[in-house]
Amino acid sequence: MKLFRTLIPLREARSIVLRHVGRVGVEEVSFDLAAGRILAEDIVAEMDSPPFNRAAMDGYAVKAEDTLGAAPDKPLVLHRHEPCSGSEPESEELPEGEYIPIQTGMPMPRGSNAVLMLEYGKERDSKLEVFKPVTPGKNVAFKGEDVRRGDIVLNEGRLLRAADIGLLASIGRRHVKVRKKGAIGILSTGDELYDPKVNGSSGGAIADVNSYILAALMSTIAKPSRMGIVSDNYDALKAAIVSCIANCDAILVSGGSSVGKRDFIGDVVADLGEMLFHGVAIRPGEPTGFGIIDEKPIFCLPGYPVSMIAAFEMLVRPFLEAMHGLKEAMMRQVFAVVAKKMPSAVGRTDFVRVRLSHDEHDGEYYVEPIRVSGSGILSSVTSSDGFVIIEENREGIEEGERIVVNLW
Amino acid sequence: MKLFRTLIPLREARSIVLRHVGRVGVEEVSFDLAAGRILAEDIVAEMDSPPFNRAAMDGYAVKAEDTLGAAPDKPLVLHRHEPCSGSEPESEELPEGEYIPIQTGMPMPRGSNAVLMLEYGKERDSKLEVFKPVTPGKNVAFKGEDVRRGDIVLNEGRLLRAADIGLLASIGRRHVKVRKKGAIGILSTGDELYDPKVNGSSGGAIADVNSYILAALMSTIAKPSRMGIVSDNYDALKAAIVSCIANCDAILVSGGSSVGKRDFIGDVVADLGEMLFHGVAIRPGEPTGFGIIDEKPIFCLPGYPVSMIAAFEMLVRPFLEAMHGLKEAMMRQVFAVVAKKMPSAVGRTDFVRVRLSHDEHDGEYYVEPIRVSGSGILSSVTSSDGFVIIEENREGIEEGERIVVNLW
Repeated sequence: MKLFRTLIPLREARSIVLRHVGRVGVEEVSFDLAAGRILAEDIVAEMDSPPFNRAAMDGYAVKAEDTLGAAPDKPLVLHRHEPCSGSEPESEELPEGEYIPIQTGMPMPRGSNAVLMLEYGKERDSKLEVFKPVTPGKNVAFKGEDVRRGDIVLNEGRLLRAADIGLLASIGRRHVKVRKKGAIGILSTGDELYDPKVNGSSGGAIADVNSYILAALMSTIAKPSRMGIVSDNYDALKAAIVSCIANCDAILVSGGSSVGKRDFIGDVVADLGEMLFHGVAIRPGEPTGFGIIDEKPIFCLPGYPVSMIAAFEMLVRPFLEAMHGLKEAMMRQVFAVVAKKMPSAVGRTDFVRVRLSHDEHDGEYYVEPIRVSGSGILSSVTSSDGFVIIEENREGIEEGERIVVNLW
Repeated sequence: MKLFRTLIPLREARSIVLRHVGRVGVEEVSFDLAAGRILAEDIVAEMDSPPFNRAAMDGYAVKAEDTLGAAPDKPLVLHRHEPCSGSEPESEELPEGEYIPIQTGMPMPRGSNAVLMLEYGKERDSKLEVFKPVTPGKNVAFKGEDVRRGDIVLNEGRLLRAADIGLLASIGRRHVKVRKKGAIGILSTGDELYDPKVNGSSGGAIADVNSYILAALMSTIAKPSRMGIVSDNYDALKAAIVSCIANCDAILVSGGSSVGKRDFIGDVVADLGEMLFHGVAIRPGEPTGFGIIDEKPIFCLPGYPVSMIAAFEMLVRPFLEAMHGLKEAMMRQVFAVVAKKMPSAVGRTDFVRVRLSHDEHDGEYYVEPIRVSGSGILSSVTSSDGFVIIEENREGIEEGERIVVNLW
């Protein structure tokens, strides 16, 4: 049996991984299908929004000057403007002393410069009593107020959300360039594994949960493909990887990445390409490796589900985000006060599953580690709210410290 | 033109809405398709996990007692156990003074009670030098340690995430009951609207962005159906709503919910069923209404996109979460310190779009409102990180206060 000679720090492992990111291609999709996708171009407004001055309230379009001096006990009277039949409101000029009823969103008639709210007027027989003066520009949404033609309104690398879809539509963008979803192959290795979707459990066998977890972890950003279970056998593993490489942009292999004698993955990667590291000073997740075959990245992840999740969050997710050109940090973090010391060791990065609680009284979140006896305890993940990464130069985190918690 | 006679507080509006929630039905899906769905049953473990005691490390299965007293300069020697050919490891009993090499995840041989890590032994010629003692149970994952048969491992109402999918697989659940996605009809009203997916802009016309924003806001929890644009006309609106009611579990209508003379939605709802409120003391979003037609809820949302988003987050999202039985709060919030006063008025709930910044020095998030001149400014949403709700009994939030920020 061989041992990991050296464990490299997480920082170094991450920088090696990020040096080998191949950016995925770009595709054009209809704006309404772009939510959740990563933008692959700067979006420049091709027109002003609003495209014209428009009413921001229901009421009466007026010349503000005509309302000067109006008061509840001393209303001023304006006359309803009757447009020439057949002409558009925009082509008319509102004369002095007149008004036009207007609804939110409608273009302001030429010559008007404010909207008197319904509450402050009383209309009868084409006459309007005005109870309050308005200032010029009152209740008007001005041309280009939201977005000005030529402005960059959304930056490349943004993860598009619901309001962005509306913004794209409002500035006339019907198609938008987004990153393609990378094809990520998933292999599980181990003679002891069975596919829980296909078979029930039988004595001694273990459900391959890893490939399902990986697929679910990646589903929003990439296009995961479960490529099956491979037995602990050099030739079988080699054949599976060769076929996977041909069809995917990157591969994740879980299991078989430890140092037992059945663990061929390191040898296979080294024989087909190059193993860049194997063994990272993180806990759990130590037996994580990374290599390149035919210019395609391959991650060797631990077989234990929790270790695999830890390695995924610390190394694979940053890789996938870079691969898809994500530039804006996902806001999936809260700051919280440590309620119970989290021990760690210098020289190792710890991945600690934690629970958050919120103290109504002082408005703080408090965080404490979930007690676990082993890294195989998947319920330690499902019962946690998120995780904390303890940097390798820290001996642990003391009670009372304020730290970042990453939410699931 | 009519006015809203009374605005009801948000609290009251929300309680009326929640009293009229009809829970959606349940469907059974394969565990691997359940991520992102809401669980509709308690999940009880039908078997222990792990299903047997197994090695938690690669190394040597031993009797811990046999390693007592071992030290680097005074190793003890154990002999490799040779199983009778053809017999399973479980059927063998490890005799005193012997060891069996073992890999992570493999069943512990009977009679063994600990795993000596590779680092602490040196194997040669079927003999093992032991450099360190192990205690009983060391590096063993015990049967039922993760989940014990009969435990509730996931509660009804949980939004299922990646690790949960693994947990379901590991306890042998191949199918799981989740909430069906409610069919939510979306209508946009307004003569001035055009469908930006179908046509380009033309003078005076406004892109219907609302139906696309609503569809994107709901897409993860429900099944939105865009039912088109309806003109400002009582009969057209009535026909559209009747047809929508027949095909949907609930309806969202945007636009036409203000008090201008073109706004027929309140009348249509009152004539077909009952309008329960129309006008809520929130800003933006005041003209929001809610009614029931044929026992189906109908929301009348403002036409201005930002007002509509505000009303959606404050009233429709809680409705959808209750409709789908979501019980665990989504952790989409951070606590932050107010960096700039946010004014408000007593008697009105304010929906303030905000930007967050993180101070590396003191580890705090700081939050400040985005300056806006009108509620139509969609870019005020896209350029914000989230929103703050200022309760109706507050005159505003002072600088330095610590508040909850809801992230998009």
